[in-house]
Amino acid sequence: MKKMLMAFGAVALMGISAVAAEALVQKAKKAGLKPIPESRSELYKLIDNPKNPITDAKVELGKKLYFDPRLSKSGLVSCNFCHNLATGGVDGVDAATGHKWTANPHHLNSPTVYNAVFFEKQFWDGRSPDLEDHAQGPIQAAPEMAATKEHVEKVVNTIPEYVKEFKKAYGDPDMKPTFKDVADTIAIFERTLVTPSRYDKYLAGCDKSLSKEEKEGLKTFIDKGCVNCHTGIALGGSMQPFPLMGKYKYADIGDFKGDKNGMVKVPTLRNILETRPYFHNGAVWSVKEAIKIMGETQLGIKISDEEAKKIETFFGALTGKKPYVRYPMLPASSQKTPKPDLN
Amino acid sequence: MKKMLMAFGAVALMGISAVAAEALVQKAKKAGLKPIPESRSELYKLIDNPKNPITDAKVELGKKLYFDPRLSKSGLVSCNFCHNLATGGVDGVDAATGHKWTANPHHLNSPTVYNAVFFEKQFWDGRSPDLEDHAQGPIQAAPEMAATKEHVEKVVNTIPEYVKEFKKAYGDPDMKPTFKDVADTIAIFERTLVTPSRYDKYLAGCDKSLSKEEKEGLKTFIDKGCVNCHTGIALGGSMQPFPLMGKYKYADIGDFKGDKNGMVKVPTLRNILETRPYFHNGAVWSVKEAIKIMGETQLGIKISDEEAKKIETFFGALTGKKPYVRYPMLPASSQKTPKPDLN
Repeated sequence: MKKMLMAFGAVALMGISAVAAEALVQKAKKAGLKPIPESRSELYKLIDNPKNPITDAKVELGKKLYFDPRLSKSGLVSCNFCHNLATGGVDGVDAATGHKWTANPHHLNSPTVYNAVFFEKQFWDGRSPDLEDHAQGPIQAAPEMAATKEHVEKVVNTIPEYVKEFKKAYGDPDMKPTFKDVADTIAIFERTLVTPSRYDKYLAGCDKSLSKEEKEGLKTFIDKGCVNCHTGIALGGSMQPFPLMGKYKYADIGDFKGDKNGMVKVPTLRNILETRPYFHNGAVWSVKEAIKIMGETQLGIKISDEEAKKIETFFGALTGKKPYVRYPMLPASSQKTPKPDLN
Repeated sequence: MKKMLMAFGAVALMGISAVAAEALVQKAKKAGLKPIPESRSELYKLIDNPKNPITDAKVELGKKLYFDPRLSKSGLVSCNFCHNLATGGVDGVDAATGHKWTANPHHLNSPTVYNAVFFEKQFWDGRSPDLEDHAQGPIQAAPEMAATKEHVEKVVNTIPEYVKEFKKAYGDPDMKPTFKDVADTIAIFERTLVTPSRYDKYLAGCDKSLSKEEKEGLKTFIDKGCVNCHTGIALGGSMQPFPLMGKYKYADIGDFKGDKNGMVKVPTLRNILETRPYFHNGAVWSVKEAIKIMGETQLGIKISDEEAKKIETFFGALTGKKPYVRYPMLPASSQKTPKPDLN
């Protein structure tokens, strides 16, 4: 009888716990939080570009181009220089710095490329609708890769192996890859850079994949209202108002004013513990400080040290599994490939 | 009978060809040319550091450090920035350029890290006896990574995952990794960066692994005397006199004068078709031009266009198979990790 009671007790406890767990997951879903799908086909539906479907050949070629510094004017700055896949998809400096060691003129921080496919818009001012359009920007930006379209086309078309790979990837034996083809193919690679984590397993129904403390952090994160902006699959990625010139403690660093309506793209919180410094101007080096500032400026509330700590603990569950990247061996330049110009 | 005669003829032809092939291999070996051993144990004997034996754990940790830009003052410049494994182990620019976009003050070109383990000395002036000693240089050099020893030690010791990996790799639970440990571990990774090619198979006895044209090129290479300096496993790597200030066409680019005896380290010819520009000051962008200049300045002979072309064809056989490198995902910084300093 005692045994039976104990067993009953255990079931009851499990029941209560299961109910609470279910409630938190429901709460999270109601708040718009969504997992990265576990199913490959579901995921591909979300990340694919119907106008230029993902294939292994395009991803492999896109990876090469992503890592190729020769696309830049200097021959030294690849996409990976600022969006380093080894360090959370960012460069770890406050203002993005590229060609001639020039910092971004608005003191803008390099956002992570991981999970950027889930953003509604690209760039801090949301001026770009997708990764294909976005990829054209930094390659040409003077303080980043500083290349012209002609330079990029000349580099790719004077490296026979690249031309061959483009022809094969796009099934066009007469292809002469254009700047747009290069950007589109880089974007295809970037579309695959998603990092599922324990958090996704949790939202998908695996209760034990988050610790008690992480669940408490998630609850605090929702209750405080962080989910108003940090929602969806990316926990960010939409355009939202941000009091850049007002209450924000470091508003004087840089002159970024958002889009024409003062809206700023919400950064993703996935892998956030790996992507310091924080905010559009990289002014904040501590996650806890960032959380507290957000409470003040965005929500008009005070988030206590203890609450910030709980939310930070939850963020640990957002550190995802990075895709396996074999470092590419790039095809050699030919005599016709443009020489680097460091000036 | 006719059939028999034909068969006899074929055997005779094979015999002649085999004799000629054997003669060229013997000639190459007599000239000091040596293959990268095919046998893993023989290779390890050659590349290992008895004071700090190669292990998988050290190689993996060394790879992470090699790719980690946080070891530099700016947080932007890793070993791989100048010795890019994707592009033949070099940066493709004439003068090495690093911290604050500063070019090497002597206009020295970044030599390839591939097969550097086979060099007798490191650096263009041979001032370093091995990769362990060498690795300490660029990390601290002002125009390269510009870090202090203290910076490097602080970075590594404030990233718990790194400390854990050092402890594990060296079997020392109390290890507090020093600057020397970091350089030594990077060197261990570099020791594994060898690139066997068809040329090695040929020297090891597989006649058909070089084409007829490549064999002709090898013969020309030996006959012209290139092997006087470009010999051994690396086809280079020893200290030799170089008329830097005299006959060399581009002697006015940079002020490098070699070691105290005017000796300069001979660059390896392995992967040479991937590592333009050429010479210590990166002044020459065409292999054929480089070959002809070497004939004039080093051998006092005229190498014709046709001969240079043959030698270049042989160089194609020196493009080796690069080791498989999984791009490392680096451990996250902690709150105590030094912030990057771009100045």
